[in-house]
Amino acid sequence: MKRSERLVAMTHYFLENPKTLSSLPYFVEKYDAAKSSISEDIDIINDMFKKMGIGELHTVAGAAGGVEYIPDLSKEEAESIVTHLITHLEDASRILPGGYVYMSDLLGHPKYVQDIGKVFASAFDHSEVDYIVTVATKGIPLAYAVAQVIGVPVVIIRRDPKVTEGSTVSINYVSGSSRKIQTMVLAKRSIKKDANVLIVDDFMKAGGTIQGMISLMDEFEANVKGIGVLAEAEDEDEERKVQDYISLIKMMEVDEQNQTIKVEKGNYFNS
Amino acid sequence: MKRSERLVAMTHYFLENPKTLSSLPYFVEKYDAAKSSISEDIDIINDMFKKMGIGELHTVAGAAGGVEYIPDLSKEEAESIVTHLITHLEDASRILPGGYVYMSDLLGHPKYVQDIGKVFASAFDHSEVDYIVTVATKGIPLAYAVAQVIGVPVVIIRRDPKVTEGSTVSINYVSGSSRKIQTMVLAKRSIKKDANVLIVDDFMKAGGTIQGMISLMDEFEANVKGIGVLAEAEDEDEERKVQDYISLIKMMEVDEQNQTIKVEKGNYFNS
Repeated sequence: MKRSERLVAMTHYFLENPKTLSSLPYFVEKYDAAKSSISEDIDIINDMFKKMGIGELHTVAGAAGGVEYIPDLSKEEAESIVTHLITHLEDASRILPGGYVYMSDLLGHPKYVQDIGKVFASAFDHSEVDYIVTVATKGIPLAYAVAQVIGVPVVIIRRDPKVTEGSTVSINYVSGSSRKIQTMVLAKRSIKKDANVLIVDDFMKAGGTIQGMISLMDEFEANVKGIGVLAEAEDEDEERKVQDYISLIKMMEVDEQNQTIKVEKGNYFNS
Repeated sequence: MKRSERLVAMTHYFLENPKTLSSLPYFVEKYDAAKSSISEDIDIINDMFKKMGIGELHTVAGAAGGVEYIPDLSKEEAESIVTHLITHLEDASRILPGGYVYMSDLLGHPKYVQDIGKVFASAFDHSEVDYIVTVATKGIPLAYAVAQVIGVPVVIIRRDPKVTEGSTVSINYVSGSSRKIQTMVLAKRSIKKDANVLIVDDFMKAGGTIQGMISLMDEFEANVKGIGVLAEAEDEDEERKVQDYISLIKMMEVDEQNQTIKVEKGNYFNS
């Protein structure tokens, strides 16, 4: 195999297998090339990944060593993704009765979802994270997008128990905005003890749902290492139940009368 | 930029933007290279993608032309992915009370989910598909994985209406296995008239849910171009409500007494 061919194959391999340590001998055998050639290929790909701002190849020395792709995204790139999203969101045709904003089409778009996943993944230190946790339904695509980047499984909390989940742990919590008692359910075997998790969701108003997820993680003796929401509602009357979180977008004002939506960048871009 | 660097950058570009036609001048400007060099790069990548069995670069001639990445997967590769999945599924510790099988961990794994998405995408002619349609909750990751490969949006049918969906269309249907009346809800603005859709779900028993999705698509005047389920239950007593579908896995027998699970390849591999 020629270098040009190996570069295509190895670029594909690293992009498909983020955060997976692969030994040099693995590549030597896979591509039937000398170790020195593989090393040079890795240098070329690493330099280019860095130039493109999509992360880098991290080399671990020693017998158990190898090379792994650590995805990343520059803050400028993250800002440009979010700015693009805001332009879409400010479209007045998204206004729904009651002052809600229709977002399902954006959350249905794999390209947007993947981009958002990359922003979240770069926003957190994910070196020790074991799971991405979300709650059904709209957070699911975002959670997978993050999980894909950092190479860990997704755990989905449900609103209702299902027979195909086996034994479950459930908690009741009070929704911050509607003040209704709600339930969250998670299969007992879905998270191992002492796991580190990131919580990802699409929307946060008062934070009751996120607070519920944190309580449920306590039940599993898991450590919440970070909380990310795509959009948060600007809501000055109410105190947030959750303080330490990252938001990418802030819904400032939805004016049904004049048909305008005002959206700003979230707290992630304030720091 | 050197050829080696362009190959890394362009491989990344094509993998990130499946089924997106990009003109040669676009690459000429992006990478500051001669048109002839870009053409050669594209040939190298195309040959390598074909050799790797991950699809090909399709060139469209003319002023509005360009090149696009059409992902694909060989049937052998698909078979090896599904065989690997079956090995995992036959683990007796997955047996739940009532003879159900725990699958949430596999469906939580981004790598497995992406692989399954590639198998589905290669199983269908997706040249004219506008949306991937699924129903909450477990089908969602699979639907996104397919959508990501073929570059179209996902539409999620819900069990309950939500205020953030705006006006909705709902249908009632009879679940095939439990014989209970259930409801499906979809936002009116989520699918445009005459759209072509693929239906994707994680599990099919009698087929009532899939039948419900087909009826709902009728309401939207959408054309169901294909139906794919990850696993189907072997269920000889009952007649399938849906005939024309692809399954990747068939759950043959779950024996709680002797703690054994028998899983086979689905109908996709019979033809």
